Amino acid sequence: MSGENLTNLSALGEFGLIDELTNEIKTKNESTVFGIGDDAAVLSYPENKRILVSKDLLIEGVHFDMTFMPLKHLGYKAAVVNFSDMAAMNGAPKQMIVGLAVSSKFTLEALKEIYAGMKKACENYGVDLVGGDTTTSTHGLHISVTVIGEADAGKVVYRSGAKPNDLICVSGDLGASYMGLLVLEREKRAFQANPNAQPELAGNDYILQRHLKPEARADIVEALGKAELLPTSMIDISDGLASEILHICRRSKTGCVIYEEKIPIDQMTFDMAKEFKIVPAIAALNGGEDYELLFTVRQADYEKIKSIDDISVIGYITDSTDGQRIITNDDQSIDIEAQGWDALKNKKKINGD
Amino acid sequence: MSGENLTNLSALGEFGLIDELTNEIKTKNESTVFGIGDDAAVLSYPENKRILVSKDLLIEGVHFDMTFMPLKHLGYKAAVVNFSDMAAMNGAPKQMIVGLAVSSKFTLEALKEIYAGMKKACENYGVDLVGGDTTTSTHGLHISVTVIGEADAGKVVYRSGAKPNDLICVSGDLGASYMGLLVLEREKRAFQANPNAQPELAGNDYILQRHLKPEARADIVEALGKAELLPTSMIDISDGLASEILHICRRSKTGCVIYEEKIPIDQMTFDMAKEFKIVPAIAALNGGEDYELLFTVRQADYEKIKSIDDISVIGYITDSTDGQRIITNDDQSIDIEAQGWDALKNKKKINGD
Repeated sequence: MSGENLTNLSALGEFGLIDELTNEIKTKNESTVFGIGDDAAVLSYPENKRILVSKDLLIEGVHFDMTFMPLKHLGYKAAVVNFSDMAAMNGAPKQMIVGLAVSSKFTLEALKEIYAGMKKACENYGVDLVGGDTTTSTHGLHISVTVIGEADAGKVVYRSGAKPNDLICVSGDLGASYMGLLVLEREKRAFQANPNAQPELAGNDYILQRHLKPEARADIVEALGKAELLPTSMIDISDGLASEILHICRRSKTGCVIYEEKIPIDQMTFDMAKEFKIVPAIAALNGGEDYELLFTVRQADYEKIKSIDDISVIGYITDSTDGQRIITNDDQSIDIEAQGWDALKNKKKINGD
Repeated sequence: MSGENLTNLSALGEFGLIDELTNEIKTKNESTVFGIGDDAAVLSYPENKRILVSKDLLIEGVHFDMTFMPLKHLGYKAAVVNFSDMAAMNGAPKQMIVGLAVSSKFTLEALKEIYAGMKKACENYGVDLVGGDTTTSTHGLHISVTVIGEADAGKVVYRSGAKPNDLICVSGDLGASYMGLLVLEREKRAFQANPNAQPELAGNDYILQRHLKPEARADIVEALGKAELLPTSMIDISDGLASEILHICRRSKTGCVIYEEKIPIDQMTFDMAKEFKIVPAIAALNGGEDYELLFTVRQADYEKIKSIDDISVIGYITDSTDGQRIITNDDQSIDIEAQGWDALKNKKKINGD
């Protein structure tokens, strides 16, 4: 955006800002009684539904880098990562509330771009934007999104239901988002070293999109429902496969065996990992931000699982005394290690600012 | 806190941090099916209840100053300002979800203090802490709290229901929180000028408490229910009386008349305003953070209102063509002006950092 015709936030009163950001927002879901414009949103759910609530924060300099993250994509992603939490419970998102803290460097037009991305995500996933809080921050952009959703009363899937011999399944492919991030950071460094350098992003569309504009696997939740297949446990992959399978094992009080060769990795992810001298499975295990679903099913449901596209069986659940193990391609059995919080620290280091 | 025995956050894994902050949390409300420990909290509300959802952000350097805001009070206040939103809808808070973004200067012990305040607030108001997201920030402390609550289906009170001739009522007294803030900032400046100076806070307990540890008027909601009095409109006073009455008039498409002499102001607030050379009514109109309830009732309900303690009738609703007016003590009629966003800017200037 050029500097022309941009509107400083302080030029707008509070009424003006809220109007600018939330006009044209219409609610569609029956469960939304009243959306934006009062002290709270008002919802009404039938008794046969369970209500799901999740919250995720996105912090500038930690979760995203404004130098290569377009604001509209950022808004889209902030919404979708929360929709993914609803999918992880075997539910669907219905309402969203947004908190934005922005420093004075932001213009109205920048906030509108973020909102445009959020509105697009809401449109794509059938979600009503029902409220929010916009305020100033001393440094950077902080986005806090709360999503409310629903699942049928008997069909909420927790992390805690896995049993020994259950099959471990994962949707889509893993590690692509992390490879996309590494490419973006490489080009950022090249640009910082030589501002005339042209970014080498061509040909990397898939992994870039996986990082910049991820999607939640609402389609998998729908397919599971159609196949009348209720997973015994489920989680979405935000911090990497390793961290998430450990969450399931910990809550379910089980062990697990995962086969490296079974982990679904896209060819572009594989090639780029080699270019960065990273073992592709490590990108899948520790990269994070894939927003795929990791879940377990009873062995008796194997035929049903095979009938659903885009799902890989990557291992099975064991007794807790057997530990959490990965069998590598050269047939070694090693402990799976948690990387969640640590991965975050590493990413910060990679971002370098 | 001394520097001894403090735990750096990076020394804990993600599991460790969540365990440390959320152990001993037990849920009590029937509507809470599952709290902390999965991708989303799971709730279940009966069909005769409306579900209320609100979110408020508290940003270091904008909404609070860590040099004089004890962390436990900060946690308490972050919870209570959201409980106040529930009261403003004529409802009660039931569940809370917390997002914390903290810079690396924070220790585990500091986070525990914030959580201790939040847990205390939850205990006092009968609310379940059901989830959250804790992450790092590059600068400062950002708190994002989402509260879910309930109101009876026919008894949700919006900002939009005021009608001409309705009486304008306010609970408690106004302006005290702002005076408390001014005292704290004065003592901070004195300390900065002379670190050996003793803060002069004695005798100012009431106004300091109003700023540092406000309460939500759940008792007023209860009293209204007992008196079988349903307000025609309601809002809580977070940005000052002026801003809030304008919200009601705008949403209800009405005007209003407020009498300066009727605005409830505590003697300590009055005296301190004089000391700071501020017209006491201006502190009430524009100070904010009182978390009292502003509401309108039909004239026919005047006797019922009189039966409830701690409520003042300060004016009445008029046609929108009559504008929004305040009658001053010297009998002038002047326009009420919005101060919400602008007040925030002024506060930042007063904070000076």
